Amino acid sequence: MTSIRSPHHDGSAAYVDPTTRALGEVVRLRILVPDREDGAEAAQHVVLRSVRDGEPELTAAVPGPRGPGGRWWHVDLVLVNRTTRYRFFLSGTDGSYHWLNAEGLFDRDLSDAGDFVVRADDVPPAWVPDQVAYQIFPDRYAASAAAADRETPAWAVRQEWSGPVRNGGKHVEDHWFAGDLDGVIEHLDHVEELGATVLYLTPVFEGRSNHRYDAVSFDRVDPVLGGDEALERLIVAAHARGIRVLGDLTTNHTGAGHEWFLAAQADAASPEAGFYRFRSHPEDYVAWWDIPSLPKLDHANPELRRRLYEGGDSIVARWLRAGLDGWRIDVANMTGRMGGDDLANDVARRIRRTMHEVNPEAWLLAEHGHDASADLVGDGWDGTMDYQGFTRPLWVWLNGGARTGVDDDAVPHGLDFLGLPIDIPVLPATSAVGTMRDVHARMSWAAQSASTLHLDSHDTPRFRTVVGGGTDGWVDVEGRGRTRHLLGLALQMTMPGVPSVFAGDEIGLTGANGEHARTPMPWDTGVWDTPTWDAYRAWVALRRDHVALRRGGLRWLDAGEDSLTFLREHPDEVVLVHVVRPSVRADDEQAANVATGRPVRLPAATLGLSDGLTPESLAGETATRDGGDLVLPTAVGAHVLRLEAGDWAWDD
Amino acid sequence: MTSIRSPHHDGSAAYVDPTTRALGEVVRLRILVPDREDGAEAAQHVVLRSVRDGEPELTAAVPGPRGPGGRWWHVDLVLVNRTTRYRFFLSGTDGSYHWLNAEGLFDRDLSDAGDFVVRADDVPPAWVPDQVAYQIFPDRYAASAAAADRETPAWAVRQEWSGPVRNGGKHVEDHWFAGDLDGVIEHLDHVEELGATVLYLTPVFEGRSNHRYDAVSFDRVDPVLGGDEALERLIVAAHARGIRVLGDLTTNHTGAGHEWFLAAQADAASPEAGFYRFRSHPEDYVAWWDIPSLPKLDHANPELRRRLYEGGDSIVARWLRAGLDGWRIDVANMTGRMGGDDLANDVARRIRRTMHEVNPEAWLLAEHGHDASADLVGDGWDGTMDYQGFTRPLWVWLNGGARTGVDDDAVPHGLDFLGLPIDIPVLPATSAVGTMRDVHARMSWAAQSASTLHLDSHDTPRFRTVVGGGTDGWVDVEGRGRTRHLLGLALQMTMPGVPSVFAGDEIGLTGANGEHARTPMPWDTGVWDTPTWDAYRAWVALRRDHVALRRGGLRWLDAGEDSLTFLREHPDEVVLVHVVRPSVRADDEQAANVATGRPVRLPAATLGLSDGLTPESLAGETATRDGGDLVLPTAVGAHVLRLEAGDWAWDD
Repeated sequence: MTSIRSPHHDGSAAYVDPTTRALGEVVRLRILVPDREDGAEAAQHVVLRSVRDGEPELTAAVPGPRGPGGRWWHVDLVLVNRTTRYRFFLSGTDGSYHWLNAEGLFDRDLSDAGDFVVRADDVPPAWVPDQVAYQIFPDRYAASAAAADRETPAWAVRQEWSGPVRNGGKHVEDHWFAGDLDGVIEHLDHVEELGATVLYLTPVFEGRSNHRYDAVSFDRVDPVLGGDEALERLIVAAHARGIRVLGDLTTNHTGAGHEWFLAAQADAASPEAGFYRFRSHPEDYVAWWDIPSLPKLDHANPELRRRLYEGGDSIVARWLRAGLDGWRIDVANMTGRMGGDDLANDVARRIRRTMHEVNPEAWLLAEHGHDASADLVGDGWDGTMDYQGFTRPLWVWLNGGARTGVDDDAVPHGLDFLGLPIDIPVLPATSAVGTMRDVHARMSWAAQSASTLHLDSHDTPRFRTVVGGGTDGWVDVEGRGRTRHLLGLALQMTMPGVPSVFAGDEIGLTGANGEHARTPMPWDTGVWDTPTWDAYRAWVALRRDHVALRRGGLRWLDAGEDSLTFLREHPDEVVLVHVVRPSVRADDEQAANVATGRPVRLPAATLGLSDGLTPESLAGETATRDGGDLVLPTAVGAHVLRLEAGDWAWDD
Repeated sequence: MTSIRSPHHDGSAAYVDPTTRALGEVVRLRILVPDREDGAEAAQHVVLRSVRDGEPELTAAVPGPRGPGGRWWHVDLVLVNRTTRYRFFLSGTDGSYHWLNAEGLFDRDLSDAGDFVVRADDVPPAWVPDQVAYQIFPDRYAASAAAADRETPAWAVRQEWSGPVRNGGKHVEDHWFAGDLDGVIEHLDHVEELGATVLYLTPVFEGRSNHRYDAVSFDRVDPVLGGDEALERLIVAAHARGIRVLGDLTTNHTGAGHEWFLAAQADAASPEAGFYRFRSHPEDYVAWWDIPSLPKLDHANPELRRRLYEGGDSIVARWLRAGLDGWRIDVANMTGRMGGDDLANDVARRIRRTMHEVNPEAWLLAEHGHDASADLVGDGWDGTMDYQGFTRPLWVWLNGGARTGVDDDAVPHGLDFLGLPIDIPVLPATSAVGTMRDVHARMSWAAQSASTLHLDSHDTPRFRTVVGGGTDGWVDVEGRGRTRHLLGLALQMTMPGVPSVFAGDEIGLTGANGEHARTPMPWDTGVWDTPTWDAYRAWVALRRDHVALRRGGLRWLDAGEDSLTFLREHPDEVVLVHVVRPSVRADDEQAANVATGRPVRLPAATLGLSDGLTPESLAGETATRDGGDLVLPTAVGAHVLRLEAGDWAWDD
């Protein structure tokens, strides 16, 4: 029940004074209360309800200067505790009764589950929200000249770079395409041209598979990737271009071939035997999803903690010293969780502490396939891979259903969606926005801003396939899924978080599942979907050019069946994003927003727009005026408008 | 978006096999999927999504026998972890896409915040959900003959039993009415006649106020209450009648006159000095809400923990050995929380462990004025005082607004509601039910069942006053608030949890705030509101007679503006509760349910009712049949109907 006339607050710099987050200090909060339709002030009372030492406390907010289309109220919050949850009470000049929390506006009393969250002291590195990440699966990105001469590892079956990628089945992890880290170095121009500023590398430690999530050591980079020296070269080359490098560490398990596990199996009295949980030594042990090749680590063991992440000699510390700018933690959601024991948050806290000892600016990103909020407690993971709050809402809104034509015999049962026994559903924007708000309401703004936005990854079908681009694993050059793909791209580049592009998305690659999505990158630009590549560079550039897209708040204005509309508000500028999908009811993919039956009209005054003014268009079509209304474009597309920022200074 | 045709699941014995909650064991879950309106089966797939070791896992449910008006599906859940969160996916035979969690049914993807919760091992005592509690404030309940001769304590100003109670102001805590524990013993007949089975006594330890939340010792019962022997006599007398006794312990703070605090102030090197946090010894210390008479305890101190709750010599253990059947913990929400430190859950866990060492059947109830769910983590507090999920929703639904006439000059600004700068709002049943569902969705069924349901307490206005019974502090003999009061009573006695009656409610006492609500109990039955007293005995008896009211699930069927309707389902019986409030829009308090403009009609088949059958009426009016519909009464009142239980056996 949020509309453009709803009061708004979020954790961004427009609404929470960014000056300090230190324990014991005062932070000023601001709430924007748009005027009523008749132009009158809407709020009679605005009250902050914050929880202090476990007990709710009320503090009256006071009306301040005029904000865009309404009144700013403000109130000071003392950061008494490390985590403070808060929401606002508003009574209306019309006698209405409302609470505003991170989920939106409610006309009833509430649980605390949707409260805003602000944390003292523990904040993610300041550089993170400004980045665009680029995910590379090293075996499939690029092979340097040296790769041709490398001996095929014992576990591997060598494949042709231009050959097909299997979409599953036994031993698919043995298919070795021989990409390496020097290959990545050779294509940093491409990364730079795209505009990405962080490389996220899936594991580079030696393993017994092409994905290397079954490490045999955390002490050395796989020789078939070029070894430690190649990683060092890559880091130096990337840093020279202002590109940071994120490593990928599996803390939940090792490979059964890991030197620790071999030692553990060889000797039940070895220190390493305590790193795992043997039901019966040496053959019966706890493994990830009971897969014997992936024995699960037992984080109750102090020596394991020391080797992996406790102190300066640990794996976590050592590779940061070697130049990594942070870690993506694989299976973070399960790390330290085993039956009756749950050490997960403790493990996250210890990893972060060690990282900050080496580099206080290191980024700690947790893999989580679902709602990670219970693990984003402030002093552990900085953020998560936001599949639940971003990827899946986009999939259900932007896939075209049966029309997307999962027409390849290799995927007779359609694409996997959460493992459910159905095809990906087609849902309206109201549902997608409902999910986004529900999921993000549980995270602090800081955690959301340090989480990654994926259209897909090496663990999912390619987004291009989800939206109808075909399932053959090659580039969708016909552009069957292009329109919808680029709408997803527009959302990825205009929403809060760190966009993370899975290499190959930017040229239109398809793939029916995670394995199948790992097509070796075709470097012949002749087979690329050029409009897609052009769009990626434009949208990344737009994000990099506009601080509101990187750091602005998120204020939902409208959601219908086929369109969604939001503001990114920043003290320096305000950007309006309006995305219209092709109607799933119309036959013509390029049909206008017919399904909602309503062009979106917004009261211009509420956007701070003076009489007759229309905003500058940054992408897509421009809006028009109809008297007091701003009328948004109805054409399928992503329409981005720039509004006046108004007087958002914090010194008043 | 729940209706009578919504699929349903809850944590009760009708939906979760109650046989075991042991870690590692299998628990069968059941989901009822009502048929579609055209009589067809509604679900194509039902899938359990549970989180195991931090990762979601899907398990297909299978269709089982017919349940009332639909199909039972069932699925087995292994209790791998101590806490398991789960929800259900349902795809409809009509192609619909839904998730069912503890908040209800959603047509979109979700955060985990509303998931059902089941816990292994840590379950509240089995006797708790069958109780009706009776809250006694000892200074105001009854004075034995011995009381007349007692010397007035140094802190006290003696008052006449029949004199007025102040509604606030300085030194109100000095007003001493000299009630004592032998007085309580003398009125156990009354408690038994009411039907209550647990006495909850506010503090009995010696203090320097009439409420004794400022204890000077936890080692002795206040001599003016009759001392240790009087408590022992009361426990013996209560137990002889099958009535249990709950103590009240303040773990957040002591009084400034407490022997520990005196020792702490006298000697900065004393062990007790570490029990508190001195900013500057001896005069500057952390106190509860900065009230100097209530220095806050520092639970980081091991010796404090030992004295208060760690091990068999602790206060917690000692008084259980003396016969108490459990503890209500005062200010539990703040206990152990101080600035950057949060030991709250750890303290709860330690208290519970010690209690279970003395008596595994002891009940641990936490005071929490708001959403307690984050503290109900399974191995700490068994339950909470459910102000947020029960009391306040009733207040906003059942108070009549301006018509309730806060007409006493002593309360010029109306009644306090959450400290907000407004009168208690009048909200529709949709809002009240929304709040209940929101709050209870965060609690396990076990925690909800071990939480107390209050219309009011010694910390709030009397419910009778909230609903228009006047503010003079005496009995509302004219019955101005009676109709609404008894609707509240009906909900208190028909909802899940442990009803807790604040002594005096049962005879119609009023009171404008917590202090004012502590009117000495008038034992002259001539001044009682007899219809109220009759209703209390009847509703308590109804609850005690019907297992579905004590232990049944909670399935919402309908909520409008002026009525709400729910089922309590138990394998042995099913009870339907339909409560209709007086319309706040009508002038006549006894007006029918006019505001909703709709009598509530339910499809009889969905309730498992055969053709033409009407259910047995247990209270209020009966329902009628209109073809396939059951038409519920429209008269203001609480209408309780008994339905067939159907075949709910777990052995199929």
